[in-house]
Amino acid sequence: MTIHPIDVIQHKRDGLVLSDAEIEGFIQALVKRDAEHPTPTDAQAAAFLMAVFVRGLNAQELAALTHAMRFSGEVFDSSPLQGFVVDKHSTGGVGDKTSLLIAPIVAAAGLKDPMISGRSLGHTGGTLDKLETIPGFRTQLPLEEMLAIVRKVGFAMAGQTPKLVPADRILYELRDHTGTVESPYLITASIMSKKLAEGLNGLVLDVKTGSGAFMQRDEDARLLARLMVETGELAGTKTVALLTAMDQPLGRFAGNWVEVQECVELMQHFSPQIDFTLSEEKLRLSADLLELTHALAGHMLHLGGKAATPEDGADLSEWMLLDGSAYRNFLEMVELQSDSWEAARAALERPAEFHRPAAMRVLEAQSGGYLAGMDCRQVGWAVQRLGAGRAKPGDPVSAHAGIEMHVKIGDRIEKRQPLITLYSEDPDLLHEPEAMLRETIRVEQEMPDRAKLVREVLRR
Amino acid sequence: MTIHPIDVIQHKRDGLVLSDAEIEGFIQALVKRDAEHPTPTDAQAAAFLMAVFVRGLNAQELAALTHAMRFSGEVFDSSPLQGFVVDKHSTGGVGDKTSLLIAPIVAAAGLKDPMISGRSLGHTGGTLDKLETIPGFRTQLPLEEMLAIVRKVGFAMAGQTPKLVPADRILYELRDHTGTVESPYLITASIMSKKLAEGLNGLVLDVKTGSGAFMQRDEDARLLARLMVETGELAGTKTVALLTAMDQPLGRFAGNWVEVQECVELMQHFSPQIDFTLSEEKLRLSADLLELTHALAGHMLHLGGKAATPEDGADLSEWMLLDGSAYRNFLEMVELQSDSWEAARAALERPAEFHRPAAMRVLEAQSGGYLAGMDCRQVGWAVQRLGAGRAKPGDPVSAHAGIEMHVKIGDRIEKRQPLITLYSEDPDLLHEPEAMLRETIRVEQEMPDRAKLVREVLRR
Repeated sequence: MTIHPIDVIQHKRDGLVLSDAEIEGFIQALVKRDAEHPTPTDAQAAAFLMAVFVRGLNAQELAALTHAMRFSGEVFDSSPLQGFVVDKHSTGGVGDKTSLLIAPIVAAAGLKDPMISGRSLGHTGGTLDKLETIPGFRTQLPLEEMLAIVRKVGFAMAGQTPKLVPADRILYELRDHTGTVESPYLITASIMSKKLAEGLNGLVLDVKTGSGAFMQRDEDARLLARLMVETGELAGTKTVALLTAMDQPLGRFAGNWVEVQECVELMQHFSPQIDFTLSEEKLRLSADLLELTHALAGHMLHLGGKAATPEDGADLSEWMLLDGSAYRNFLEMVELQSDSWEAARAALERPAEFHRPAAMRVLEAQSGGYLAGMDCRQVGWAVQRLGAGRAKPGDPVSAHAGIEMHVKIGDRIEKRQPLITLYSEDPDLLHEPEAMLRETIRVEQEMPDRAKLVREVLRR
Repeated sequence: MTIHPIDVIQHKRDGLVLSDAEIEGFIQALVKRDAEHPTPTDAQAAAFLMAVFVRGLNAQELAALTHAMRFSGEVFDSSPLQGFVVDKHSTGGVGDKTSLLIAPIVAAAGLKDPMISGRSLGHTGGTLDKLETIPGFRTQLPLEEMLAIVRKVGFAMAGQTPKLVPADRILYELRDHTGTVESPYLITASIMSKKLAEGLNGLVLDVKTGSGAFMQRDEDARLLARLMVETGELAGTKTVALLTAMDQPLGRFAGNWVEVQECVELMQHFSPQIDFTLSEEKLRLSADLLELTHALAGHMLHLGGKAATPEDGADLSEWMLLDGSAYRNFLEMVELQSDSWEAARAALERPAEFHRPAAMRVLEAQSGGYLAGMDCRQVGWAVQRLGAGRAKPGDPVSAHAGIEMHVKIGDRIEKRQPLITLYSEDPDLLHEPEAMLRETIRVEQEMPDRAKLVREVLRR
């Protein structure tokens, strides 16, 4: 049966339920477009996206769209991996570097994690941009090489290949300029098609909520989480979603290299083989990062049968830091993925020394009180404008730009106390972000309530 | 203030009310697109159209969209015409040839009608295709020549120029392939922008309803009529809409030349100066055409101050046929618009003889009873497949293809009585339309109710 794009558009426009064949046919034709078969045109795809935006999709339609996108190109064949294949995905935050810890942790505990990550988007950071600050680090791995690294180390960290989920690339570019980005249905299909293309047995989703999240309201984040869990399970992948707070940067740093530094220093601190110790204060500032890391890894380990409960999984996750195996794993992965391993090792051995911003500035408290809160999205934008992010796709990012938080929400603040240090490779870039941060950081006289970091856990 | 297409799309998507500036900015940018300013892209315009399709427009938004489209290119400057400038528009039907009679009638009564018409679309006929069967007839008139002819004769009949309402051409092409045709809001903006670009003082709309109409349900046709009247009045043009039945071909013929023939023979029959008489039976078969012609022309004459009531206007319209002035006007218009006036005059003098189909076939009743009805859309498609219409834009149409109705709904039918004669220039094209007509014509034992031709009149 031939699927005509216009019929699919009209059915969704009129609120009808699309068949699997209609969705499959539309997406396949979209990816195969050429001079002889030019439809669906960009205009037809945009009309389809807007119809989906307004009308939504039911669970079966969403599963069919995700499936069609997932298999629109190559997929990662995880079957030779001989183990439980797992991954995590975050909807994007500020200072969210859990992936750098979680992948080596779950690999150390015996799971396989072929992690495919993204780049900095809007006010949020991107794992690939962080990893690429490691000297010689390659994020563009052919799928065969990725498979070999996961086989050897238990995990690999790479970017999407051009042949993986091409339908998402086409649709994402269109959504970006046709006002159809913020649909929970289209977000779910985009995220889940890419994640499921990794051939996963289990997936843990970190759905951010709060001022620094794309979904700022709990109810929007909850709907997105529910749709993603449902879609993962319908595809045969065990899926759990955690709703987590994104109301301040996660951990101590936000930027690119500084986030690698924070993770490496934590792994070094806990490794019994390494003679390096973080101060109590620095550990305290990274406490939320560690809490979230273990919570997410704990669910992954539970899904993968390595722990009886997610809480047991979180304990196991801590052990993988404390016995040094996660850090060993991390270094082994970098050795395989870096083209200049000597330089990479030198940087990782003393990460604080490798941090070489040309300029810095300290934002001090103008009055005493408590750190009451901030618009975390503004903080994210400040980090990006220091040079850590891009104005448009393809722009280079600065390795050493970023911020260091000296306080967390709820902390007692003295007047003139350093709140945030700003780093940039270009002194001219300090001014605007400093003003943005000064504007958004709220110091008040009353001690604020501390929000829970992990708000909810959603399962099928 | 710069208008960003994506903001306009998002606002409409979210059900907000767009400002005049947003709509104006979007449409102006659409028409001015070039390599340097490529937005709104086709995809953005399609997303906008789908958002409008689903969310609708309020009266002010619709007025603003119509205004922006109307002034997106050249407009016909009717100010030198020194008279009440009026036109009619039909939403499209089968055998609907009222324009050929109405324009010379209202001109004969002293109004000015710069009529810009369209071509056959889908199952419906087009005035331009009918006129172009007259030898040498030009429908592509520069606006200055059109003005000169209206000045001289009181009316002219032409096609849209490429510079008139370019926004509609862009949007119409996009709507056609993005499933956004059937929106009453977008239909209103498309029709009214083109009609108002004629610089009208008054406009009468013939909104078809029934199986042969684009809007088959009364409530859809009524909404469209209401929106068009509101939009016309907001633009300062006196606007009236008639809801009229399209459940069988209007008059005796449907096709191209045969429709010119029907009108010319009627004008000749009524003209005291011409020695030509139609049989009572042929007049009876054209009675609905005459009724609708006088009803529409009556409203136009009433709007233009030539009659105290629409009913008086209908009487005046009849008089314009009975004193021969409408026919004189028609011939004068053809003389000015035809490049081969001698051939045109010869064809018009004996129109039945100029009708030269290569093949014909008579569909006979297979049983006796009453003509109960038909799917008039199927009848329209049969006419187009005889050669009168196009499979795609730009295809040539046959001058002599068409059908002749020998019966009207409610007529008593004898077995083997001729119901319809099919004409084509290609004998191979007779078979499928004959089967389509046989399939759809219903002869039943009970006499059907006769529907009123003019169902409702809508005013502000």
